Order: sequence, then C-alpha cells, then structure tokens
Amino acid sequence: MRYFRTLGATVLATATGLALIGTACTGAAVASPASLYAPSALVLAVGEGDSPETATIVRAVTLSCAPVPGGTHPSPESACAELAATGGDLGALTVLAGGRPCTREWAPVTVTGDGVWQGRRVSWSETYGNACELRARTAAVAALSF
Amino acid sequence: MRYFRTLGATVLATATGLALIGTACTGAAVASPASLYAPSALVLAVGEGDSPETATIVRAVTLSCAPVPGGTHPSPESACAELAATGGDLGALTVLAGGRPCTREWAPVTVTGDGVWQGRRVSWSETYGNACELRARTAAVAALSF
Repeated sequence: MRYFRTLGATVLATATGLALIGTACTGAAVASPASLYAPSALVLAVGEGDSPETATIVRAVTLSCAPVPGGTHPSPESACAELAATGGDLGALTVLAGGRPCTREWAPVTVTGDGVWQGRRVSWSETYGNACELRARTAAVAALSF
Repeated sequence: MRYFRTLGATVLATATGLALIGTACTGAAVASPASLYAPSALVLAVGEGDSPETATIVRAVTLSCAPVPGGTHPSPESACAELAATGGDLGALTVLAGGRPCTREWAPVTVTGDGVWQGRRVSWSETYGNACELRARTAAVAALSF
C-alpha cells in the first residue's frame, strides 16, 4: 500500500514536472484566448470586378463582434446581430431580393467578407451584375450597408 | 458657326442626359470610394492547428490603416508603418529569426492575415511548429504582436 502511494506520488510529480517544462518551453500563453468569447472579426469590402481576387476594392470596413460590437462599420450593433442570427453566414443575408428594378448592364461589383467568426476563419464573396443589383439585394442588410 | 454651337450644345445635353440615366440606374455612388485613400483593412488572427482552414482561432484583431491607423490591434501605428514598408506583405515581416531557443515539439500554431491592402484583397498565413517558434520569429514584428 505504501509502495503504491509512493509510486503514485512519483508519477504525479513527474507529470507535473513535464507539464511545467512544456509550459515554459512552448509559451502556452500564446495559445490562450484573449477573452472568454470566441473571437469574431471581419473585413467587409466592395470592389469593382467580377472576381474577388482581382477586384479593385473601393470601400472596406472592419467589424468586430466580441466582446462588444465595434469597428469602422457604420452600424456594428445591427451587423453583429444579423451575423449572429445566421451563424456568421453572410450569404444567408443576401437571399432576399429587393423590389427595386435594375438594368441588365454588366458592370460587376463584388462584395467580400473575410476574417474570423466565432473562432473559425470565414471567406465569402458574391458578385452582382451591377451596383444597382447589389443595392437591391442588400438594401435591407445592415451588415452589407457600408 | 451658329450651327456648330447648337450641335455642340445638343451633344453636350445628350451626353449629360445619358450620364444622368447611367447614374440613376446603376447607382454610381456604390462604386465611388469612401475616401481619397485606397482602403486598407485587415483581420489578423492566431489559431491552434497546422492549417488556416481548420485552425481554432484563439485571438483575432482588426487593423485599418487608411485614412488613419486604428482597430482593435494594440499598436496600429507601428503595425501600419511596418505593412507600408513591405507593401502589405506580411510574409516579408517574419523572415528574421529571433535568438530565442525553442524545442522541436509539434503543437502547431497558425497566424493568418486576411482583408484588403491598398485596394487589393490579401490572404496570408504561416504555420509554426509551436508557440515558442511563433514568438521567436515574430517578437520584433509589431503587426503580429497582438
């Protein structure tokens, strides 16, 4: 019984020692989150062109949603609420078509959203035929009104 | 002479009219930049894992550099200056190895930078074997010290 107790203590001490060494060597602090909330931070942008890779970005805003809504986005509270409702899915926000009529002119604009939502990287983009279509589809979406 | 003046006025009026129609239909305001500066806005993140797609992001900050440095980044001025010096190339900032010794333990951490730099979309990531290596390589880089 005494033998087992000693053995247990030795195992425990060794494990603790190894854990401490591991902490010291790899700097566990780096991997610890800065807050209790999973980070959510996005860059939303509008560009001219039909591809997110080659579009010339004319406007871009930052949006961070945790711990409090903020960023250069004009209405971060509404934008974060919308994103929270769809689980960070920007595409789900643009499904509603507006009632505004548009010409079929081809002058493509691309909207992109890149960054982190609830600790996962997200990258979304959608191309519209022209700026009118973009506005018609996103007029009611606070997150994309910037 | 009178004929040419009239013709000129008609052409001008027609051109103005078409331009106005074009503006009304496609909402040219959408494509106009919000400021005189090309937008620069980034989300910088650190996650656990060896792939930017699957890493669990533990920290993320926003950084916007135009018209003034800002965001949730702890030192936006220094970070924007570094990025401006390398033309927005985050990879160029991490080439210097620090003098700190690290174990070869495999506990990968991935740093990512996504968003817009000077009107172009950027997406960068780099994976380090463990958090110590990340710190050794990026200790002197203000943009990646968050």
